Amino acid sequence: MKTPEELIERLKAGERRAVARLITWAEREDERAAEVFKREAHSLGRAHIMGVTGAPGSGKSTLTNALTARLRAQGKRVGVVAVDPTSPFTGGAILGDRVRMNELATDPGVFIRSMGTRGHLGGLSRATSMALRALDLAGCEVVFVETVGVGQSEVEVMHICHTTLMVMVPGLGDDIQAIKAGVMEVGDVFVVNQADRDGARRTAREINAMLDLSHSAWRPPVTLASALKREGLDELWEALESHRAYMQGERGFQRRVESAERELLSLAQEQLTRHLKEGLLTHTNGAELSTLAHLVARHELDPYSALERLLGTPS
Amino acid sequence: MKTPEELIERLKAGERRAVARLITWAEREDERAAEVFKREAHSLGRAHIMGVTGAPGSGKSTLTNALTARLRAQGKRVGVVAVDPTSPFTGGAILGDRVRMNELATDPGVFIRSMGTRGHLGGLSRATSMALRALDLAGCEVVFVETVGVGQSEVEVMHICHTTLMVMVPGLGDDIQAIKAGVMEVGDVFVVNQADRDGARRTAREINAMLDLSHSAWRPPVTLASALKREGLDELWEALESHRAYMQGERGFQRRVESAERELLSLAQEQLTRHLKEGLLTHTNGAELSTLAHLVARHELDPYSALERLLGTPS
Repeated sequence: MKTPEELIERLKAGERRAVARLITWAEREDERAAEVFKREAHSLGRAHIMGVTGAPGSGKSTLTNALTARLRAQGKRVGVVAVDPTSPFTGGAILGDRVRMNELATDPGVFIRSMGTRGHLGGLSRATSMALRALDLAGCEVVFVETVGVGQSEVEVMHICHTTLMVMVPGLGDDIQAIKAGVMEVGDVFVVNQADRDGARRTAREINAMLDLSHSAWRPPVTLASALKREGLDELWEALESHRAYMQGERGFQRRVESAERELLSLAQEQLTRHLKEGLLTHTNGAELSTLAHLVARHELDPYSALERLLGTPS
Repeated sequence: MKTPEELIERLKAGERRAVARLITWAEREDERAAEVFKREAHSLGRAHIMGVTGAPGSGKSTLTNALTARLRAQGKRVGVVAVDPTSPFTGGAILGDRVRMNELATDPGVFIRSMGTRGHLGGLSRATSMALRALDLAGCEVVFVETVGVGQSEVEVMHICHTTLMVMVPGLGDDIQAIKAGVMEVGDVFVVNQADRDGARRTAREINAMLDLSHSAWRPPVTLASALKREGLDELWEALESHRAYMQGERGFQRRVESAERELLSLAQEQLTRHLKEGLLTHTNGAELSTLAHLVARHELDPYSALERLLGTPS
């Protein structure tokens, strides 16, 4: 796989190695990655990108796993991108989970990519965004993105998703607190997992009560499920599908535009930061970040003049 | 006050209105603000900028208030910048607190500036950074920045501070959790406030045990205080002063450089975002954000080509 043409061909055949190669090219800013995405722009957007978020221990991975198995039974190609460092997909979980994940890992119709939260050349948003697009081109009908959703990068990752599933567990007052604190706006579908535990219905009622206060165009459904026992998955999938249908309508289009705006802004910020750190703004006659920081720390320059010199002025 | 010269004169005389005017100029990107900061770069850095952060209800404002009163008794000029929307300085607290704050508000040696967390023209980091520099030029020896420290902008605000005081309360397991989750790295000095309550010493021990595990160059001291009863303030102030002395040494200089780097990066990101939203990148032939987002949402363009067109190429 040396040319974009060859890679596109293998990608469409669903070859895992082609996905990995495309992501590698993309991370290294190899021109060929840009070429692939440019040529295949019209093929992008076929995958439904589904964020799965919730507190550690809420059962995000087990749910993702159960939903993936369900889609596989229907013969659909599925992608999983794990941003959560505690996810079994990234290797951080207890043995039992990992064994179950391994079943998926050997299924040629399942594509798993784990993202460390550090060390991505171009930043986490960019790396995740590109992994998602590569899986999209590889013909995955659904791509799950698992993230704890804490921290700025993770929140930006959620903005790339078409549908965000918020996984809650019964009886955690903290969860409700988290919803109050703004997590609520992020969820498109809520599921109370471990629904066989006490208080599951009560938690669902509390979430519903809170959602009733909101006035967004989309009213998130709240369902009950037990990922471990594989119960409630039909209702959950129906809820997720209803949001998918919404996103294909006019109001959904508006949201996709907003989401694209946010993604572009976050990609632009990551690129700027990277270029500034590498001193690559020389084409605008920008001065070096570290030199300027020294001057500011010594009070030989004020931060606002430093900013001007940092960004430079186009000649 | 129409010229930079006049403003500088009044600012140095400690006129409140001059501070307000400078911040207004700065927010409007009036050339005169840049002129003031440029001319007075050598006078910057005299104020010690002290972040005060902690969970809502931990007593940040009461502590800030008590420390301010202490400095005023010594005849020192003090600035207070409240980023926390629940702070009585910004008007969001219970009556008792507000009355106490009002005593400070009428003291001509105290400069209070409250920042809403939304709606700043150039972004919160920039607005806060400029307010701090204006108070610095106005001759404040200490400027307190009160923030809950949650959310990206607030974290960036903390990076501007020379010393960050982390306010804890007794018996909150959650606090310890928060420390574990990375808040620990931010604190230069820890205080267990409401130290007359049960479990204060135990909380201090727990914090100390955790700090012992860290290997940073600076080992944060942990003190006990009761802001309401005005107890333990001497020890707390001593701890804060010891960090101030550290920051004036060689290792402290290194940290000031890093902090300047982070501030410049965050100012640059805010400026980029603003310019992109306003479509001001036309000098690099950049296309409009909203136009590009529509093309991406319709899958007529891939996000990476859109990014290239967004940032444009300098001619």
